[in-house]
Amino acid sequence: MPAKDIFHDTVKESLIKEGWTITDDPLSIRVGGVEMYIDLGAEKIIAAEKAKRKIAVEIKSFSGASTIYDFHLAVGQFMNYRLALKNTEPKRSLYLAVPMDTFDSFFTLKFVQTAIEDYQLNLIIYDIEKQIIVKWKP
Amino acid sequence: MPAKDIFHDTVKESLIKEGWTITDDPLSIRVGGVEMYIDLGAEKIIAAEKAKRKIAVEIKSFSGASTIYDFHLAVGQFMNYRLALKNTEPKRSLYLAVPMDTFDSFFTLKFVQTAIEDYQLNLIIYDIEKQIIVKWKP
Repeated sequence: MPAKDIFHDTVKESLIKEGWTITDDPLSIRVGGVEMYIDLGAEKIIAAEKAKRKIAVEIKSFSGASTIYDFHLAVGQFMNYRLALKNTEPKRSLYLAVPMDTFDSFFTLKFVQTAIEDYQLNLIIYDIEKQIIVKWKP
Repeated sequence: MPAKDIFHDTVKESLIKEGWTITDDPLSIRVGGVEMYIDLGAEKIIAAEKAKRKIAVEIKSFSGASTIYDFHLAVGQFMNYRLALKNTEPKRSLYLAVPMDTFDSFFTLKFVQTAIEDYQLNLIIYDIEKQIIVKWKP
């Protein structure tokens, strides 16, 4: 299986394990003359809220030659996907899925932490070995 | 000359024609554990303001297979470079240099216009044939 698909399938399986239903793989959005594809769309009934929660997930492996370059691309995708969703599905929350080892190293750098806060990025940290979601932030 | 260098040199020469001095090619920034390189740093004495104006320019060719993908990357770079400059050189303005044909087609799409406004992107539109800057926005 190509490396990209391993990361994709890990996040997908991890979400299913947590009770999410994958509704779109990928989730396509058409808005303002542009077409975009976010890796996954998922939903879950939250009993306590008596409501259906919807998310969109952009899955990143951060396995490229340059982590900062991968981060530039991830930020740009997140900004554009969030802006597109604001127009088409304002109640769907967007998450960036990041492997645990990248989160523990690169994502602890001061600049990256400032960026996450400044751009209000939502993160899902996943463990590629155990095929689970380790943390949701926030 | 590789295509990338043609775009790079066009913008560089166009800035020089307008009286800018290229001070950095590329402009490197170290901030919060991360190192980044913006394509060009330039400055110009503005007589009326009796001040030196400084800019940083990220040069894009938009010649990739997917224009929206190139735009995602450009947005991410712009966000991160601006955030980095805010910490290191708050008076230097960041610009995204875009070829005229891409500006006249892709950048007129409603989504892209909304994005430019929402993220407050500064643009330099350049003519690759005439080797000049056509417009600064804003």
